[in-house]
Amino acid sequence: MDATTLDREDPLARFRAEFDLPEGVIYLDGNSLGALPHRTKARVRDVTEHEWREGLIRSWTDAGWMELPQRVGDKIARLVGAPAGTVIATDSTSVNLYKALSIALAANPARRIIVSDRANFPTDLYIAEGLLRQLGAPHELLLVDPTEEAIEKALGERGSEVAAVFHTHVNFTTARLYDMARITSAAHRAGALALWDLSHSVGAVPIDLAGSGADLAVGCGYKYLNGGPGAPAFLFVADRLHHLPQPLSGWMGHAQPFDFSPAYRPARGISRFLSGTPSVIAMSALESSVDLMLEAPMADIRRKSAALCDAFITAVDEQCAGRGLELVTPRDGAIRGSHVSYRHPRSADVMKRLIARGVIGDCRPPDLLRFGFAPLYLRHADVSAAVTILRDCLE
Amino acid sequence: MDATTLDREDPLARFRAEFDLPEGVIYLDGNSLGALPHRTKARVRDVTEHEWREGLIRSWTDAGWMELPQRVGDKIARLVGAPAGTVIATDSTSVNLYKALSIALAANPARRIIVSDRANFPTDLYIAEGLLRQLGAPHELLLVDPTEEAIEKALGERGSEVAAVFHTHVNFTTARLYDMARITSAAHRAGALALWDLSHSVGAVPIDLAGSGADLAVGCGYKYLNGGPGAPAFLFVADRLHHLPQPLSGWMGHAQPFDFSPAYRPARGISRFLSGTPSVIAMSALESSVDLMLEAPMADIRRKSAALCDAFITAVDEQCAGRGLELVTPRDGAIRGSHVSYRHPRSADVMKRLIARGVIGDCRPPDLLRFGFAPLYLRHADVSAAVTILRDCLE
Repeated sequence: MDATTLDREDPLARFRAEFDLPEGVIYLDGNSLGALPHRTKARVRDVTEHEWREGLIRSWTDAGWMELPQRVGDKIARLVGAPAGTVIATDSTSVNLYKALSIALAANPARRIIVSDRANFPTDLYIAEGLLRQLGAPHELLLVDPTEEAIEKALGERGSEVAAVFHTHVNFTTARLYDMARITSAAHRAGALALWDLSHSVGAVPIDLAGSGADLAVGCGYKYLNGGPGAPAFLFVADRLHHLPQPLSGWMGHAQPFDFSPAYRPARGISRFLSGTPSVIAMSALESSVDLMLEAPMADIRRKSAALCDAFITAVDEQCAGRGLELVTPRDGAIRGSHVSYRHPRSADVMKRLIARGVIGDCRPPDLLRFGFAPLYLRHADVSAAVTILRDCLE
Repeated sequence: MDATTLDREDPLARFRAEFDLPEGVIYLDGNSLGALPHRTKARVRDVTEHEWREGLIRSWTDAGWMELPQRVGDKIARLVGAPAGTVIATDSTSVNLYKALSIALAANPARRIIVSDRANFPTDLYIAEGLLRQLGAPHELLLVDPTEEAIEKALGERGSEVAAVFHTHVNFTTARLYDMARITSAAHRAGALALWDLSHSVGAVPIDLAGSGADLAVGCGYKYLNGGPGAPAFLFVADRLHHLPQPLSGWMGHAQPFDFSPAYRPARGISRFLSGTPSVIAMSALESSVDLMLEAPMADIRRKSAALCDAFITAVDEQCAGRGLELVTPRDGAIRGSHVSYRHPRSADVMKRLIARGVIGDCRPPDLLRFGFAPLYLRHADVSAAVTILRDCLE
């Protein structure tokens, strides 16, 4: 089928009009910063110009600001297959990851190793490094190759020392989608916990945290969730770990924050993993964008994401052969997220030319061109036009 | 002089029109959540509807998003007497405090005690408790009475074990202003660092971090700075401590964040104390509000703050005598911040009635009525009207 027909028959077609997209741009970077929904624009105005301006301090109760982390968390929970009461939206991905790793170490104090893949998102590794350095030897970050087999091998060799396996769900460069159930099971067989970074999958790929038995997860609010630049991130902690301490024990995680008592007493449930006060404007923007995504069936999102990526890869095969592009993303949609990356010896130049022509993707070192396909607002016609321009830019 | 004359002669009079204040409200809670400046309303629209909507990912460079933490930090530095390059705006006060305490402990690894005052803001104590629990014995949080003498006594007894004295600049209930130079000197004489929480003083009280020799400080963006609900907080780290590690070592603090290298290498200077990605919308709102405050001479702010508090206390003395109010705030403006608190046996009821009459303050346990005086948007006429209504509400 041609792009026009595919777009006409797209069950998600109506969602494009929900976004306030700039003219003259084909936006293939929604995997890095999602686009602005119309309703989120309106929500930002409302929270600023009505709830803050008029309500002032009263809005903490009257406008429900106090419950934003739990309320937005419960909505994100539906996107990641987690029960209500196990997800909060707050802080940055980095800060939430620090909490999640701390919880994992607290669950198994005799175990001092965190296993991760060396291709994990760098900031994830930096945070693990920071925590383990702070705690000192014999804590260790054990990095292995980014394959399910490498994780299983490491667990086979040193499993009894491992507190947690910490893996990315979709790799930020290759888009390789990892088998959450398989890696989680391997961690559990070794007596370790499984911690997932969902930043590059949430909103584009079906996620079943409960079904896979995952223990902990973090994810980003500003990529496919379209929560806005630097939107709050989220943290999932399975019920069975809600008794554990976390070091960033600020007032929002207190059992009675408005008692202002001098001693910390953690809230029940997921709330104890809150720290300080998150931005209400940023949280409200995220909530509005998540509400929009919840209107789209995840099966449709996944189907369209795979189709857009397939169409892009096929068209590049056909039109750009012999022009220096080397695909690093799996061709098999079953093990692929929603972006596609190519090596190219002059990647930065090519991307500069693409952006000048209105096709926005990004570069990742050392030589990658990366293109993201956000199913809610991209059309097959965009993919087709983008490849034509890419071909020109490679000449 | 009467209120009308004082307001006419107020050198800060023009600033009231910079705020978009709701009709029919006398807002005496700017010490908890500042009011919305017109320019901040416009800035929030611009960053959302122009920089995010149109610029999308390009705005990280084109709109200067990447430098927001340092740029806003440098502006706040001017309000707290700190050199450029020693303050960043990011994260919440709680998270920044966790970093600051970690830096203090890293500076003096042989010392395991943090001294603070037991009347410190509760979340500050919770965070200290969380960090020290995580690090384990023999780390200890030593709480003393909230006086300069009590701090000096504790340092006299156990100074050689103390890594840092961590004190609030203005107490959140009593409004007592502590002597930063004196406590900092006492800490230094004991070989310890001095860490200040400026949340209840920044924007209302002159602060001289450099002059007093302070080592570390944190503060809040949403009180007198008017940055919006849950605005990013800030962290000051004196130059001489910029070599120290911090545990929340995320990508924004990396020397080359866009290299995406797997190993953490901290940035030079204050930037290494950044962690994850802060909300760009929230940071932009804070920047706009701080810009406004920088137009007002701090000496004028301080003078007006003291005059408003004095006028309130005097009027309450005159009009509300014998109605159950007990002042807990110093009458001496030299040791007082910019809010005033009274005990009252039915504080919650009284505040409810006040709010119903348009006078917004707040309650703090167990029995405090608290009134904040933000010099940029309050007038003497507001103080006078508020006390009249307070008198009615006490009947």
